[in-house]
Amino acid sequence: MPETHSDLLGVLAARLGAKHVIVDPAAMEGYLVEERKLYRGAALAVVRPGTTEEVAFVVRECAKAQVAIVPQGGNTGLVGGGVPHTGIVLSLARLDRVREVNAFNAAITVEAGCILKTVQDAASEVDCIFPLSLASEGSCRIGGNIATNAGGVNVLRYGNTRDLVLGLEVVLADGRIWNGLKGLRKDNTGYDLKNLFVGSEGTLGIITAAVLKLFPRPKAQVVAFVGCASPHAALGLFESLRRTMGDELTAFEYLPRFALEIVLRHASGAVRPLAGDHLAYALIEVSSPDPDLDLREQLERSLGAAFESGTIEDATIATSEAQNAALWHLRESLSDVQGLEGGSIKHDVSVPVSDVADFIVAASKACEEALPGVRVCAFGHFGDGNIHFNLTQPVDMERSLFLAQWERFNRIVHDIVHAMNGSISAEHGVGLIKRDELARYKDPVALDLMRTLKQALDPQNILNPGKVVAVTGDLPPALPVARKA
Amino acid sequence: MPETHSDLLGVLAARLGAKHVIVDPAAMEGYLVEERKLYRGAALAVVRPGTTEEVAFVVRECAKAQVAIVPQGGNTGLVGGGVPHTGIVLSLARLDRVREVNAFNAAITVEAGCILKTVQDAASEVDCIFPLSLASEGSCRIGGNIATNAGGVNVLRYGNTRDLVLGLEVVLADGRIWNGLKGLRKDNTGYDLKNLFVGSEGTLGIITAAVLKLFPRPKAQVVAFVGCASPHAALGLFESLRRTMGDELTAFEYLPRFALEIVLRHASGAVRPLAGDHLAYALIEVSSPDPDLDLREQLERSLGAAFESGTIEDATIATSEAQNAALWHLRESLSDVQGLEGGSIKHDVSVPVSDVADFIVAASKACEEALPGVRVCAFGHFGDGNIHFNLTQPVDMERSLFLAQWERFNRIVHDIVHAMNGSISAEHGVGLIKRDELARYKDPVALDLMRTLKQALDPQNILNPGKVVAVTGDLPPALPVARKA
Repeated sequence: MPETHSDLLGVLAARLGAKHVIVDPAAMEGYLVEERKLYRGAALAVVRPGTTEEVAFVVRECAKAQVAIVPQGGNTGLVGGGVPHTGIVLSLARLDRVREVNAFNAAITVEAGCILKTVQDAASEVDCIFPLSLASEGSCRIGGNIATNAGGVNVLRYGNTRDLVLGLEVVLADGRIWNGLKGLRKDNTGYDLKNLFVGSEGTLGIITAAVLKLFPRPKAQVVAFVGCASPHAALGLFESLRRTMGDELTAFEYLPRFALEIVLRHASGAVRPLAGDHLAYALIEVSSPDPDLDLREQLERSLGAAFESGTIEDATIATSEAQNAALWHLRESLSDVQGLEGGSIKHDVSVPVSDVADFIVAASKACEEALPGVRVCAFGHFGDGNIHFNLTQPVDMERSLFLAQWERFNRIVHDIVHAMNGSISAEHGVGLIKRDELARYKDPVALDLMRTLKQALDPQNILNPGKVVAVTGDLPPALPVARKA
Repeated sequence: MPETHSDLLGVLAARLGAKHVIVDPAAMEGYLVEERKLYRGAALAVVRPGTTEEVAFVVRECAKAQVAIVPQGGNTGLVGGGVPHTGIVLSLARLDRVREVNAFNAAITVEAGCILKTVQDAASEVDCIFPLSLASEGSCRIGGNIATNAGGVNVLRYGNTRDLVLGLEVVLADGRIWNGLKGLRKDNTGYDLKNLFVGSEGTLGIITAAVLKLFPRPKAQVVAFVGCASPHAALGLFESLRRTMGDELTAFEYLPRFALEIVLRHASGAVRPLAGDHLAYALIEVSSPDPDLDLREQLERSLGAAFESGTIEDATIATSEAQNAALWHLRESLSDVQGLEGGSIKHDVSVPVSDVADFIVAASKACEEALPGVRVCAFGHFGDGNIHFNLTQPVDMERSLFLAQWERFNRIVHDIVHAMNGSISAEHGVGLIKRDELARYKDPVALDLMRTLKQALDPQNILNPGKVVAVTGDLPPALPVARKA
């Protein structure tokens, strides 16, 4: 370690306390390896400030020493955005206070290190919901959710994380604190600074706190599971429900037959929802804050009409909270059970909602032609046009041989997405994994605008360097040295 | 005119056709004077390109000649943002095509010069709505609505213009075209460029086209008019309706007694909605895409409970489309009738919704103490925390003497807004009128970030210079030379 770096760590330890500047390799381990074990990072230290002012101090000192900073929340990201390859990891985990809950303004002010579940629970205490909901909600932290503009299962009704943010507090690359913690529904006093930081994956500033929207808690909620003959039929159903039920339609999740099969094969407690076999399934949730609304009757009426017109083949509507949960269990088990069928090549893509069925059909066909026997597991947030277009290895293939074809399938799938004016990263972000893929597909003017913004806001390139967009920086190297595990 | 400028106009005329480079003072008049007649601008010419490529050409040539560009849509803005003080006016009016309507993707692609009403009508043709709705919708153009992040009467349910934009096409300060015309619900491929341009009032780029969200057309709609004893009672009603009706609550507009009085006095066809007299009124609209939903029954139930609990004093619920319209007429007439009572000093502010009643009470008291006899007309988008806090002159006062106190009342009202962590420009933007006021109240770090962005994206300071935020630029002068009429 160069002397300047040990000086830096000494300065940080003097302000934060030695125990919050971690250099012990064993203690650092959890901050260096990410969720999918695709990368192992390296860092001088893990630094854990406890307040916004301490975050600002750390950034100022790192800026002085020209040492890179990788901000980290719960380290649950799926694109390698939190993996360090030099410099320090700045963990926000100790900034975990709920600063204010204002049910009357339908807003909550939280620090970046709050676990998502904590935010949900604080909303619940005032009979509201914070609607962001995703698989890692018990361990991901809200700062990371905001920095990656996380999606999840409630986007159809409540929007992406971006849409849930009213205000932000951000430490800039030079250590200044921007206090934008306003809880306003309307504010046209100049440029929209907050959306610049939301989704920037820690490359433009470090989010330390946020004001988030709350919503009335739904008092009525009904879940249905529907079998259709094709993704196009499912799209027809979605369109008709959207037309008649509007925002009561909270979720419209898609599963192909293969997905339901592997859930029923592996997931504990999974029960077959419909007697027959269908090519395409949809999980539908409707909800309303009005407890007197007969949602079940409304949904029955809509699904009845869809059955009569031949749009759907079969459907079941839950009659209790427990049945609601049992149907959701089928969808939520899917992430875990895929691994039990062997290697999985994953894509997180979106297309216009009108094209989502065409996309599933075209991309499935192209992949099955490219590798006979490959098992397409294209599922997800159909109503948002967001498909997790995952490929499970052929039954008899060597796992590593299959995974070696990741780049080849990227090209097949992403070319189709691109031709449909879609996105190669719908909800997981860019990070390391998709940085160079983005450079291939993104409009060059847009990429150049991104570089302009990065250079304007972080001229030393010390905030999460090498992630999202490559810029020419003196320090550290633009390309990460992380290696695949 | 310097020779270089006549050269420039010649080059532009050669490409666009001479009739689209207007230099005749009479023909330019409508582009130089703005809605409220507060400013008269000056320009070398009004240039009217017909395509995005022509816009890009104009910008490239102006950049070469270092001539400022003021983009203009319908010239209906209320803050002087479209007033030129040098350079050219670039009118987007000829870019007025609806490029695509995709009801299945609930999206519409339009050019910047489309009149808002045209966008609404195109949506209507496919049984959808484009929900942005405001007083000038028959003449304002969508590019201006986007550039100013316009608000209006449907924000409570559908959000600000920002929330309705899926993608943009923008000509940058160097004449390059950024094509971000994607119609996606989820896209995490890098920084959020579109929100940078939305609300930037033409100072960072020129919006030439947009993909906008459509929504299912409401099939049931009910309007009610309610009388309350105080703004606090109205807030209590809003909170209970929000809790039970959720997104069916489409509008919650507030009028004080004085506002209803002057509407009844001056507006043609205005009919007193309630027999008695109340200190505070609310216009409530609920709607749903489900034609079978009995919204009237739901609203009756909610208002009945509010009456029983003493939250409201009286209410009437419309029983026909015509009655719906008659109640809306009371609210919509308000903008026009204020002028008939004499001079009006206006503020467009917002506070957290929880504080909106406190704000009205505190600001009214402060103004009435400052000028006995002043008539407070604080009305507007209560459910968004957005109040048009207008002051009508005392009956016997000289109009000009009253208007001379504008700055004094700015200080009184904006100081209260600021202390409540509110916004001094909720929906109209900054433009010229509020630029220096913004410099007084905005967080200095935020202002500095704004200047950094302006300098990064428009280093020559040729895009709408002197608006929104002052920067040090060689050309043209940072301070406008426009004069009050």
